[in-house]
Amino acid sequence: MSSLDSLTASLASCSIQPSATVSHGETNSPATWREALLAAPSAPKDFELIKTLVYKPKTAKTAVPVPVVVIARDETETISSALGKKLNLKELRLASEDLLKEFFASDKNSLSVLSLNNDNFPKVVTVVDSTIATSSSVFAIHALSSSSTVFLSGKDIVSYLRQLEGADVKIQEIDFQALKTETGATPVGQPSKPSVKEKEDAKIEGAVQIAIGVKKEVDFAAWYTNVNTCIPSLLDFVLILDQVLIKADMLDYYNVSGCYILKPWSYSIWEEIQDWFNKNIKAMGVQNSYFPMFVSSKVLEREKDHIEGFSPEVAWVTRAGNSDLEEPIAIRPTSETVMYPYYAKWIKSHRDLPLKLNQWNSVVRWEFKNPQPFLRTREFLWQEGHTAHLTQAEAATEVREILELYRRVYEELLAVPVIPGIKSEKEKFAGGLYTTTVEGFIPTSGRGIQAATSHCLGQNFSRPEMFNIVVEDPNDPSGQGKTYVWQNSWGLSTRTIGVMTMVHGDNQGLVLPPRVACVQAVVVPCGITAKTTDEDRAKINNACDELAKVLIKAGVKAKADLRDGYTPGYKFNDWEQKGVPLRLEIGPNDIAKQQTLAVRRDNGEKSPVPLADIGVTVSSLLETIQSDMFSRAQKEYFSRLKEITRWEDVVPTLDDKCIAVLPWCEVEACEDDIKERSGRAAEPQDERAPSAGAKSLAIPFDQSRWTPIEPGKTKCPACNRDAKRWTMFGRSY
Amino acid sequence: MSSLDSLTASLASCSIQPSATVSHGETNSPATWREALLAAPSAPKDFELIKTLVYKPKTAKTAVPVPVVVIARDETETISSALGKKLNLKELRLASEDLLKEFFASDKNSLSVLSLNNDNFPKVVTVVDSTIATSSSVFAIHALSSSSTVFLSGKDIVSYLRQLEGADVKIQEIDFQALKTETGATPVGQPSKPSVKEKEDAKIEGAVQIAIGVKKEVDFAAWYTNVNTCIPSLLDFVLILDQVLIKADMLDYYNVSGCYILKPWSYSIWEEIQDWFNKNIKAMGVQNSYFPMFVSSKVLEREKDHIEGFSPEVAWVTRAGNSDLEEPIAIRPTSETVMYPYYAKWIKSHRDLPLKLNQWNSVVRWEFKNPQPFLRTREFLWQEGHTAHLTQAEAATEVREILELYRRVYEELLAVPVIPGIKSEKEKFAGGLYTTTVEGFIPTSGRGIQAATSHCLGQNFSRPEMFNIVVEDPNDPSGQGKTYVWQNSWGLSTRTIGVMTMVHGDNQGLVLPPRVACVQAVVVPCGITAKTTDEDRAKINNACDELAKVLIKAGVKAKADLRDGYTPGYKFNDWEQKGVPLRLEIGPNDIAKQQTLAVRRDNGEKSPVPLADIGVTVSSLLETIQSDMFSRAQKEYFSRLKEITRWEDVVPTLDDKCIAVLPWCEVEACEDDIKERSGRAAEPQDERAPSAGAKSLAIPFDQSRWTPIEPGKTKCPACNRDAKRWTMFGRSY
Repeated sequence: MSSLDSLTASLASCSIQPSATVSHGETNSPATWREALLAAPSAPKDFELIKTLVYKPKTAKTAVPVPVVVIARDETETISSALGKKLNLKELRLASEDLLKEFFASDKNSLSVLSLNNDNFPKVVTVVDSTIATSSSVFAIHALSSSSTVFLSGKDIVSYLRQLEGADVKIQEIDFQALKTETGATPVGQPSKPSVKEKEDAKIEGAVQIAIGVKKEVDFAAWYTNVNTCIPSLLDFVLILDQVLIKADMLDYYNVSGCYILKPWSYSIWEEIQDWFNKNIKAMGVQNSYFPMFVSSKVLEREKDHIEGFSPEVAWVTRAGNSDLEEPIAIRPTSETVMYPYYAKWIKSHRDLPLKLNQWNSVVRWEFKNPQPFLRTREFLWQEGHTAHLTQAEAATEVREILELYRRVYEELLAVPVIPGIKSEKEKFAGGLYTTTVEGFIPTSGRGIQAATSHCLGQNFSRPEMFNIVVEDPNDPSGQGKTYVWQNSWGLSTRTIGVMTMVHGDNQGLVLPPRVACVQAVVVPCGITAKTTDEDRAKINNACDELAKVLIKAGVKAKADLRDGYTPGYKFNDWEQKGVPLRLEIGPNDIAKQQTLAVRRDNGEKSPVPLADIGVTVSSLLETIQSDMFSRAQKEYFSRLKEITRWEDVVPTLDDKCIAVLPWCEVEACEDDIKERSGRAAEPQDERAPSAGAKSLAIPFDQSRWTPIEPGKTKCPACNRDAKRWTMFGRSY
Repeated sequence: MSSLDSLTASLASCSIQPSATVSHGETNSPATWREALLAAPSAPKDFELIKTLVYKPKTAKTAVPVPVVVIARDETETISSALGKKLNLKELRLASEDLLKEFFASDKNSLSVLSLNNDNFPKVVTVVDSTIATSSSVFAIHALSSSSTVFLSGKDIVSYLRQLEGADVKIQEIDFQALKTETGATPVGQPSKPSVKEKEDAKIEGAVQIAIGVKKEVDFAAWYTNVNTCIPSLLDFVLILDQVLIKADMLDYYNVSGCYILKPWSYSIWEEIQDWFNKNIKAMGVQNSYFPMFVSSKVLEREKDHIEGFSPEVAWVTRAGNSDLEEPIAIRPTSETVMYPYYAKWIKSHRDLPLKLNQWNSVVRWEFKNPQPFLRTREFLWQEGHTAHLTQAEAATEVREILELYRRVYEELLAVPVIPGIKSEKEKFAGGLYTTTVEGFIPTSGRGIQAATSHCLGQNFSRPEMFNIVVEDPNDPSGQGKTYVWQNSWGLSTRTIGVMTMVHGDNQGLVLPPRVACVQAVVVPCGITAKTTDEDRAKINNACDELAKVLIKAGVKAKADLRDGYTPGYKFNDWEQKGVPLRLEIGPNDIAKQQTLAVRRDNGEKSPVPLADIGVTVSSLLETIQSDMFSRAQKEYFSRLKEITRWEDVVPTLDDKCIAVLPWCEVEACEDDIKERSGRAAEPQDERAPSAGAKSLAIPFDQSRWTPIEPGKTKCPACNRDAKRWTMFGRSY
C-alpha cells in the first residue's frame, strides 16, 4: 500500500473523503505549490492553500521543547510576537529542519496538518486559524509529501484534528485577525514594518519559505470592490496579475515549471506585433531565416564573457531515445554562437555586407528564480535580429533604428510608454560593446522593466580569436587592409504582453489597446426578458449580428455575442475581464432610435452612437481609446520620474514607487554601491519579489528633461564624483 | 603535443603543408563525414573525400595475411574482384575491425592514408588510384581520427606514400576505370548488378560503411552538361539535390548533424505558406496559440501506441546549468500529449466545443537514419492543428477540409501535384483512428513522398484512461449521457520546400513557382561593353531600375540586379540557380524599341515584351508559368501511375520509376508481404537510399481513374484475396 493509499485509508477511518488527490512535481514554496496545483488538470478550479508553521518557544537548553504548530489559511497573517503573547510563550522562532524531522518526520515542504498524528499531537501545542472551520473554501494540504496534495473542507480539517485530541490536549482555535487588532498591529492590506524580532526570525534557516505565505487565490472580484480601503502589496499585485492573465484567457499554467501556455487571446497580440515588426524590418532590408535550436558546447563556449552570462541557465540535451549523445548539446539561450560561425563562412567580401538576418523562435533560459508569466519564463518567444556591417557608423545607425521600432511597438501598438536610452556598462549585454534599451515602468509596483534591447556588439564577436568574420577593407588605399565586421543583435520578446497587461490592467481585468485586440468591439444584445416574444428576441439578435457585420466590413474587428442562456451582465463581465476595448449594447429602445450604446473599457464612458455611419464612428472611437490609454500611461510614467540630487532622497523616492533620476558619475563601483545601499535601507521584500536594491535602468538619450549638468560642478549624489549624465535608477523586474 | 600536432609535424618533415586542418564531430560514414566538412566553416569550399579500403585476400589460416590497402577517390569504383584478378590474389574481402586494429591501430572510421607508416607499410600491399596524383582537387583525409580531417593535394598524398617506400616495397598505382573496362564491367553511370561475390563481401561487418563511397562533391555544372550521356543514380540525385539547395542559397549545413540552417531564400517560401494557410484556417475558426516545447516523461508516455511511434526518437533534457533535473524532460516530437491534458481542463461543456487550436513551431525527432535536408531532419518547422469536436461527423468533415487546404498549398502555391487519399492501417498515425494524406511523387527517383497528413484521432485520446476529455451529451434525451470528444490533428512541415525543389529543380538549379518566389522577376542590364559610355551605362541601369519599380507598383516582386563588376552571364546563371521565374533583360536595343526580353526559367522560352503595360503582361506571364509548371508536373505524375493487376508486373513497374496501383485486399499481412517480396526482388540500393520495398502510399479518394473493382471478382494480385480499393504502392521517402 503506497503512503498515499494509507493516508486515504486513515482519512476514511475519520469519515473524511478528500474532494481530490493530486500528484505533482516537487514544490518548495507556496508559490511553486500553487503553480503546480494550477497546472494540474485534476485539481479543483478554486482552492486555498493551508500553511503549517512550526515555532519553537525559548526554552532552557536542557528542556524538551514544546513546538507550536500553527495551521492557518495561507492569506491569514500570523504574527509570531502576538501569538507568543497570547500563548504566554517567549520568543517564538520558526523551528529548524532538525526539529521538524524529530517531531514530525517531515521536511518543511511536506509538512501539513496531516503530519500530526496520535504520537506527536500530545507533544505539541496546536493552534488553528478559527476561520477555517466555517469557511466554504476547498483547502489544499500536502499529503505527507511536497509532491502530492489532498483537498479537504475546513470542516474536515478540524474533524481530523479533533479526533487526535485527548482529555488534556486540545487544539486552540485563534482568530488571528482579532489577535492582530488586540495587539495593535496594522490593519490588513497595510503591512506593518517588521519589528527587529521578526527580522531575526527571518534569519533562521529555511524560515523565509515557511513563514511568508503567498497571498494566494485572492478572490479577484471581491478584492477590487474593496480597492479603496485595501492597498495591495507588491506581492498581491503579482498574484492578481496571474489572475488577470487566467481570467482573461491569456494563458494557462503548464506542468513543467516556468513554462506557460499562450492561449489564442494572448498569442493573437504576438501575431499583431509580428506583422507590424516584420513589415518594418523588411523595409530596412532585414530578411527572416531559421537557425537550429541546438548548439554544441564547443561553439557555445567560444565567447567567454558572453557565455558567462548564460551558462547557469543553459538546458542540455544528453540523450536521444535510449542512447546517450556523445557530447551534450545545448538548447539556444540566444543565437549569437549558433549563427556567427556561418556568418564567418558566408561573409567573404565587403560585397556580402551588410548581412541582416532575423528569426522568430523560442529560446530557453532555465532560470532558477521564481518564474513569472511573460516576464520570466524558461521558454519564451521572441525575435532575434543579427546583422553584420562594414563600418561602425552603419552598425550604430541600425542599433538606433531598431530601438525606434521597439519604441513604436510599445507606444503605438501597446500604448505603453517607454524611455529610450543606453545601459550602463554593468547592465549591458554580456560580450557586447554597448546596449540600448527602451525602458518601461509599472506604476502599481513602482518598478522599471527592461522592455526591449538593441545591442551593438562592436567587433567583439568578429575578432580572429572569436568567430573571425573578416573582409578586405575596400576603403584601404593599400588594398591590404582587413576589417573585422561590426555586428548588432536585437531582440523583442513576449514580455511585451506582460508589460502591457501590468500597465493597463485594472480591477475588472485586462484592458486591451485597440490596435492589438483581436476583438476590438463586442456587440451584446440587451433588454431581452422572459416576456420578450421570440420575434422581438430574433429582431434584437439580428440587429446585433448586422451591426457586427457592418463593422467588420468597415475594418473593425467586431463580434456579436449571441450566446444563449447567458445574461447581458454575465457577458459584460466576461468581455471586460478579457479587455475588449469597446462594448456596443443593442436593446429594443436602441433599435427604435437606430442607435447603440457604446461603453469604453478603458474609462467606462458610455455614450449612445447613431447606427448611421457607425463604421467611421467606431473606428475613430477606437483610435481615441488607443491614444487616451497611451497619454494616461505616459503621464503616469513621467510623474514618477523624480530628479534627485541628494542621496537621502533616493530610498524614499523608491519607496514612493518612483524612479530616481540621478546626475550620475557612470562609475561601475558607484552603481554597485547604490544597489547595495538602497537595498539595505529598503523595506524587506518577500521571496517572490525582485530585489529591493536600485539598479541603473537607463541613461536616457533625451537629457533635456532635467536641469543641465555642469561639467565639473554637478556631483553624483551617491559618491560625489563628477556627474556625467542623468541616469534612471530604480527597482526593477 | 597532441596527436594532431604530432601529425602536422610529421607531415612537415615530408615537406607537406595541409591546406586546412579541421576538427568536427565523430563521423561513421562518408555521408556523415562529408556533412561534417560541409558544416565546418574552416573547411575548403570544394573538396573530395579519399576513401581507404582494406581487403584481406584468402590465405591459409596459419599464414600471416598481407592486407591490401586501397587509397582511392571516393567516386572511383573499386571493384574487388577485378582488383584481385589484377593483383593475382584470391577472394579479396573487406578486412575485419580486428585486422584494422592489428595492422593500423585504427578503427574503420579513422582509417586513412596517414594510418600507413614505416612500421606497417612493408607488411601490406598499397594500391593508389592513379588519378589522384594529377588531380587538381583538394582531398579530405582523416587525421588519424574520425573527428578530424586534413586537406591535402593529390601530389602530397603520393609524396607521403613515396617516402614510406623501401627497396622492395612500392606503392602500386592503378587506373580503376581502365581496370573496369579490361574486366568487362559496365561503364560509369550504369552500375552493374553486383555479383554474388560482392554481395558476400557486403555481409562482412562494417563493410557497408567502408566499401560504398558516396559520390560526393559532384561538380554540378560539369554534370548537367553531360546529362544526356550520364544517367545519375538515385544517390547522385540526392547529392545533386543538396547541391541545388546550397547553390540556390536555400540552406546550409549545420555542425549538429541532422540540423540545417534555413536561409532567407527558403524561409520566405515558408512565410508564403504560413500566410496563406493562416488566412484559410482562421476563416474556419481555428486560432493560433503556443504550447511549451517541453513535456514530462509521465505525460508523454500516457498514450502507449502513440509514444511507441516516437520514443526511439525523443530528445531528452537532463541537465540545466550544472544541475541535473529531478526528472528528464522531453522535447516535443509532436504535441498531442502536451496539449490534451489542458483540453481536458478547458473543455467542461459541449458549449466549449469545437476547440480548434493551431501552432507554428519546431519539433524534434532525433532520427538515426541518414538525414536529408527538408525531408528528414532532426528539428523541423511545421504547423500542428489540434481540434476537439462533439460528433464524429463534425470531426470527419474537418479532416477533409484541412486535407483540401494541404492539397491547395501543394497544387496552387507550390505547383506540385498530389493525390488525396487515406492511409492503410499499417501506415496511419500511431494512436489515431485514421489518417488522410496528400501523396506526392518525385519522378527523378520514382518514389512517393508523404506530403502532409490530416488525422482523425477518434476518441482514442479522449477516453477516460487517456486524457479523459468528456462533456455531457446535449443530444441525450435522458440528460445523463456523456460523450468523449472526437479529435483531429493535422500537420504540414517544411518538407513542402524539399518536395517542391525535387519536383521542379532542373540541371540549372532551382525552379521556383511564381506564387512562392520572393523574387518573381529579376531585371538584368545587358549589352554594356568596355566601349559603352558612362552615360549609356547609366541609361541602361536606370531603365532597369525604373522597370523594377513599375513592376513592384503593379504587385510583382521584382528586383533590378545592378551589381557592378559582374557580367550579364554571371547574373543569368546566379538567378537561374536560385530559380527566379522570370528574367527581364534590357540592353540598348531594348530601350530603343521600348521593350524587354523576357526569359522564362521553367522552359527557357524567350520573348520580347513591350514596356507599355508591362505590369499586366508580367503578372499574367507569371500566372502562366505557375499553371504550366503545375500541368507539366501533374502530367508526369499521372503518367507514372500504372494500373497493375498481375504480381509479376509490380517490381518491373517500380524499377521503371513508377507507382503500381493495385486492386488491393487491404489486409495488413498482405502489405507486409508486398513490401518484403518487392524489396527482395529489387536492385540493391546504397546506404543513403530509402528502402527498396514498396509500401502502400495511399488509397486515393478518387477511384474513378481505374477500372471499377467488381466485389468478389476482382482479386488482389499479391494474395488473391478479394480486392477492395485501388491502392498506390511504391517506393518512398
